[in-house]
Amino acid sequence: MDAKEILKQYIAKTISLSDEQFDYFFSHFKPQVFKKGQTIIGAGDKLDSEYFVINGCLKTFYINDELKMYILQFAMPTWWASDYHALYTGNRSTVSVDCITDAEVLCLKTEDREKLCREIHAIEHFFRWRTNMGYVASQKRLLSLMNNDARHRYEELLKQYPQLYNLVPKNLIAAYLGVSRETLSRLYHSQK
Amino acid sequence: MDAKEILKQYIAKTISLSDEQFDYFFSHFKPQVFKKGQTIIGAGDKLDSEYFVINGCLKTFYINDELKMYILQFAMPTWWASDYHALYTGNRSTVSVDCITDAEVLCLKTEDREKLCREIHAIEHFFRWRTNMGYVASQKRLLSLMNNDARHRYEELLKQYPQLYNLVPKNLIAAYLGVSRETLSRLYHSQK
Repeated sequence: MDAKEILKQYIAKTISLSDEQFDYFFSHFKPQVFKKGQTIIGAGDKLDSEYFVINGCLKTFYINDELKMYILQFAMPTWWASDYHALYTGNRSTVSVDCITDAEVLCLKTEDREKLCREIHAIEHFFRWRTNMGYVASQKRLLSLMNNDARHRYEELLKQYPQLYNLVPKNLIAAYLGVSRETLSRLYHSQK
Repeated sequence: MDAKEILKQYIAKTISLSDEQFDYFFSHFKPQVFKKGQTIIGAGDKLDSEYFVINGCLKTFYINDELKMYILQFAMPTWWASDYHALYTGNRSTVSVDCITDAEVLCLKTEDREKLCREIHAIEHFFRWRTNMGYVASQKRLLSLMNNDARHRYEELLKQYPQLYNLVPKNLIAAYLGVSRETLSRLYHSQK
């Protein structure tokens, strides 16, 4: 399936657009290809775009003053990635996005997203629904992190991304869960 | 200022509605008054509403299997509170909302919010913007929790809610920060 068809089927789960409307919507997305390890957004960047993943896997991460890395999100096909805090407030990025694997994405500029939302009510609805889902996922993650139950976080992660354990290096999974490499290995083996 | 005027001024920061449109919008909100300590949403409830705070202070919280309480959010005037995961997915509530002080709120049913969003494009825009802001606040909190810097979390909280330290019992502030009562006291005294 090509990028256009993947976006079309994804959108169709939430809203109905005519073929003409969808073609117009799609014309604002710019296909981009990245290599494994390549940076899409660097901490400190001025941002104007978000990315819809077609193929591959991205990570959104933060590195603190002691150079410890925290992973906020993995982005697999049909997930979106950006630093939304920077994007919505106009500040510079505090997180980075790079490619865990080779990746194909569709890039959408903020000014185009806002224009599309103004022009087509259904598209505004789509983006509201998308952020609603992002918000509840974020609240759920916050709660499980506060509750600090690594076993539960591990199981949630595998439920959310079943293919992740084979795709992503174990140190990155540990950085997402906020546990050590050893704890992750224990969780993995006790589950089998 | 009465509830209608507070909501009107709050909405006007994001969208322009005619007086007639605003009156129609406001007619879907139901004023409710609660006493200090009263429960608005209980864990396990079927939910159909969200709450816009006019006066007072609410808390959204979760109690785990060991009966430890975690506070997800304080809701002060012009903040919204609900269990959005339950509201958007149709599941039962996993968190609770109750009143730290006597409180006056405006209650909006989900079916009315969705109807208003369909009928008036500007209202859909307003709710998209509102969730965008909720999403970035949630991501920011997630990051500061992962980074586990209690000092930073404490300063962010006071910046976000300057009046909180005098309004809210200290054990609740500690439950929000995920620190002990003793750590909170140390942070407070080292700041003065």
